[in-house]
Amino acid sequence: MTLPDGFLAELTAAVPAASTGAAELAAVAVDRSGILTEGVPDVVVRATSVGDVRTTLRLAFEHRVPVVPRGAGTGLAGGAVAAPGTLVLDVSGLDRIVSLDPVDQIAHVEPGVITAQLDRVAGEHGLRYAPDPASAAISTIGGNIATNAGGLRCVKYGVTRDAVLGLEVVLADGTLISTGRSTLKGVAGLDLTGLFVGSEGTLGVVVGATLRLRPLPERTLTVAAAYAGVEAAARACAALAQDRREPAMLELLDQATLQVVDDAQGTAYAARGGALVIAQADGPAADSEIEAIAAVLGKEATWIEQGVDEEASARLVEARRLALPSIETKGSVLIEDICVPRSRLAEAFARVEEIARRRGVRIYSFAHAGDGNLHPLIGYPPGPVPPEVLAAGDDIFALALELGGTVTAEHGIGLLKRSWLAREVGPDALGVHRAIKTALDPRGILNPGKAY
Amino acid sequence: MTLPDGFLAELTAAVPAASTGAAELAAVAVDRSGILTEGVPDVVVRATSVGDVRTTLRLAFEHRVPVVPRGAGTGLAGGAVAAPGTLVLDVSGLDRIVSLDPVDQIAHVEPGVITAQLDRVAGEHGLRYAPDPASAAISTIGGNIATNAGGLRCVKYGVTRDAVLGLEVVLADGTLISTGRSTLKGVAGLDLTGLFVGSEGTLGVVVGATLRLRPLPERTLTVAAAYAGVEAAARACAALAQDRREPAMLELLDQATLQVVDDAQGTAYAARGGALVIAQADGPAADSEIEAIAAVLGKEATWIEQGVDEEASARLVEARRLALPSIETKGSVLIEDICVPRSRLAEAFARVEEIARRRGVRIYSFAHAGDGNLHPLIGYPPGPVPPEVLAAGDDIFALALELGGTVTAEHGIGLLKRSWLAREVGPDALGVHRAIKTALDPRGILNPGKAY
Ligand SMILES: Cc1cc2nc3c(=O)[nH]c(=O)nc-3n(C[C@H](O)[C@H](O)[C@H](O)COP(=O)(O)OP(=O)(O)OC[C@H]3O[C@@H](n4cnc5c(N)ncnc54)[C@H](O)[C@@H]3O)c2cc1C
Ligand SMILES: Cc1cc2nc3c(=O)[nH]c(=O)nc-3n(C[C@H](O)[C@H](O)[C@H](O)COP(=O)(O)OP(=O)(O)OC[C@H]3O[C@@H](n4cnc5c(N)ncnc54)[C@H](O)[C@@H]3O)c2cc1C
Repeated sequence: MTLPDGFLAELTAAVPAASTGAAELAAVAVDRSGILTEGVPDVVVRATSVGDVRTTLRLAFEHRVPVVPRGAGTGLAGGAVAAPGTLVLDVSGLDRIVSLDPVDQIAHVEPGVITAQLDRVAGEHGLRYAPDPASAAISTIGGNIATNAGGLRCVKYGVTRDAVLGLEVVLADGTLISTGRSTLKGVAGLDLTGLFVGSEGTLGVVVGATLRLRPLPERTLTVAAAYAGVEAAARACAALAQDRREPAMLELLDQATLQVVDDAQGTAYAARGGALVIAQADGPAADSEIEAIAAVLGKEATWIEQGVDEEASARLVEARRLALPSIETKGSVLIEDICVPRSRLAEAFARVEEIARRRGVRIYSFAHAGDGNLHPLIGYPPGPVPPEVLAAGDDIFALALELGGTVTAEHGIGLLKRSWLAREVGPDALGVHRAIKTALDPRGILNPGKAY
Repeated sequence: MTLPDGFLAELTAAVPAASTGAAELAAVAVDRSGILTEGVPDVVVRATSVGDVRTTLRLAFEHRVPVVPRGAGTGLAGGAVAAPGTLVLDVSGLDRIVSLDPVDQIAHVEPGVITAQLDRVAGEHGLRYAPDPASAAISTIGGNIATNAGGLRCVKYGVTRDAVLGLEVVLADGTLISTGRSTLKGVAGLDLTGLFVGSEGTLGVVVGATLRLRPLPERTLTVAAAYAGVEAAARACAALAQDRREPAMLELLDQATLQVVDDAQGTAYAARGGALVIAQADGPAADSEIEAIAAVLGKEATWIEQGVDEEASARLVEARRLALPSIETKGSVLIEDICVPRSRLAEAFARVEEIARRRGVRIYSFAHAGDGNLHPLIGYPPGPVPPEVLAAGDDIFALALELGGTVTAEHGIGLLKRSWLAREVGPDALGVHRAIKTALDPRGILNPGKAY
């Protein structure tokens, strides 16, 4: 596929930020999913203004050029992967925090703001931006919105959707609309904000966001517990839910993961047991809550460390954040992101181990256990994905659906899970997706072939 | 307008629950908005199964008959008001709690379940259904979902949207789809769940819902404070936000409201001051939190009562819940439902009082102050709405937009605020609403003339 005649000339005349440099194109062809395309996109626009975005889309619409919106390219599902014949619209350069009101606890930001940067600035006002994907230091708010990113804190503070009050979005034909509002509540009209959140760049390009900030908790306490294996660890997490505890974080790492974290970071977690659970409590009742959480977690634990200090606490959380990069030092991985009802988490872990044995593959698993969100990572040597890895991946998708869950909790469908979406939502609901897509993007230029 | 030939015969043959009895039709022509239609709808179906809903919609679609979905008819915006020529599809009879899982903290329910009833059943498991419109004892979950109802607890626990994980929806042509999931997180496909929540019966009929329950807090403490006037009271609420306090409830009642509550309930709140603020803290840190809240609220207060016992606390909250019915004993009211950024709440109250003076009308105001959600109620004698009341209503809408707010925080657009929706969202975003409506309901049979 090549671009239509005249398009490139018209684009570069109107938008100086357009480029066809080989290195620049190669840099925006991929994301962090490991999916490779055969070749690179034809042109990249590194937008420096909303006007750039509008003009680019208006021209792309006129000439029916496929557009791949892009933030930092840290996505794990291939949503920002760009093939030949496409234009990449990179909005990471729109990176201003436009305003921040500490009484209303609301910030207006551009899409290229780095997640952790917003959190840092909010911190200067005793506030924080709650959604914290493990990629917070490198991902953009726009990318978080487009994938409805989750994170470690979302078990208590919600996912990206819960922090987005309103958006500015450029539609396929270059029209700029505002959705939502700057108030905490509002029901005027359809929830377009929610519709654009998680739409993976298929309905419009986010160029502004009104975000809700939250008070920074006064104190955060951590407890870590090791178990004989993942099933016991997952049962302990379910027991917390049964006891109606509400941890501010609840993460679970299996032994394979602990081992690579230890190898890469020089720590010694794997010696503690076959699986590790890290839980936090925060806010004014953090002391009594962490006590109660530790009491529940302690029952089946082989080792438990409660009330560890701030530094040890930070190190434990860091181990969790570094799980993916540590595993990646061992070779390539196919990253899964299933979610099951919390009561089925132990079963999910056990069945994933069974799949690894049956398919003869190595699976590293860790989980946002409080949400029932499990990341099995299937390792393989650098090179194309081997068939047994793909087969294990499919087994895991099927398992998620069998347990009443979903094939993606927070990474998105992207390119990776397209065939599974239909199985999860069914043909009629998929028809509704397509009808909405056609209504908003009648020429199908926005991230075609992605998501649904 | 009359029904097309043959439709009624076909309908009554297929759906025994269809009725054209005069009393039944009169009962479903109105809601609690006070809006009257000239005449009654032509037929009502009191569905007793999802099959009834599907068959009714399939036939209505074929014959292009307008359908007004209906829950308990407690809406305040005219969303369920039904004119001649329409079919009312009443789903309040589908009222089973299908399942409730205490570990997953999830319930599957039919749409006719009464809000407070679900909350009560959840309570047996130490859980609760958090969204609590003041109408919880009489409204249905389906109606709450269709209007994205708010309530007293939503300042801490979120609105209805935040409690809905998935839906079963019958589309305009009778197709049944499922949206969302039974897990706490998930990003597979577009957020259709969020799109149907708050869509006021214009996109589909909700016949099932997967709802998130929350742990019942161990204790709830209340503080009440009176102020010289509403501005001082609203400033005290803003000071709480500035101090980053997170009350579990934060309500404000003006003197006009206190007086009618006193008259109707035999209480004596109006003697305390020109406005009353009621705040709650709950959970394991309720004691320290209520202390901190009381310290902030106390600064400008003319009277404060802290740590009042359970019974007094229940009475105070009851006064708030009975505000609307008490005012209604004095005559008719036009009910407004604006939301402004919290920092503008004091200004909003002051300007509403100014509008009352300028237009020569009586306005009762109370607010979910923690959300910036203000309900000014404009009183008038029984009969048609006088022009000065309508004019004052329009002034209040304009004020909401001027202060960066919305014309409806939780009641919906319905019939009442249609002309204001366009002003709030703008022509391009309204175009997106219409495109989505056409995509999902191509013949425009679902609640036509409502919302947008
Ligand atoms: C080490 C690591 C850890 C991670 N941990 C997590 C985690 O804990 N939780 C989690 O949810 N994810 C996680 N991720 C995945 C990823 O970081 C998130 O999905 C992130 O939200 C992507 O942001 P981005 O700016 O890199 O977006 P990109 O990768 O550039 O794009 C992602 C998708 O969004 C679209 N998009 C981007 N910007 C816009 C825009 N402005 N308007 C419209 N569409 C747009 C793209 O087309 C694409 O479909 C992790 C990734 C890595 C590498
Ligand atoms: C005293 C009183 C206090 C109130 N307090 C509050 C409050 O604090 N917060 C608040 O938000 N609201 C409040 N309300 C408004 C009202 O109770 C809520 O809007 C409630 O959610 C409506 O529920 P319902 O079952 O009565 O719906 P209805 O009035 O029957 O319908 C409301 C709308 O939803 C649609 N609808 C109903 N059921 C379905 C369905 N199954 N599928 C699709 N569409 C459907 C209807 O077409 C209509 O547009 C109050 C009302 C009263 C009378």
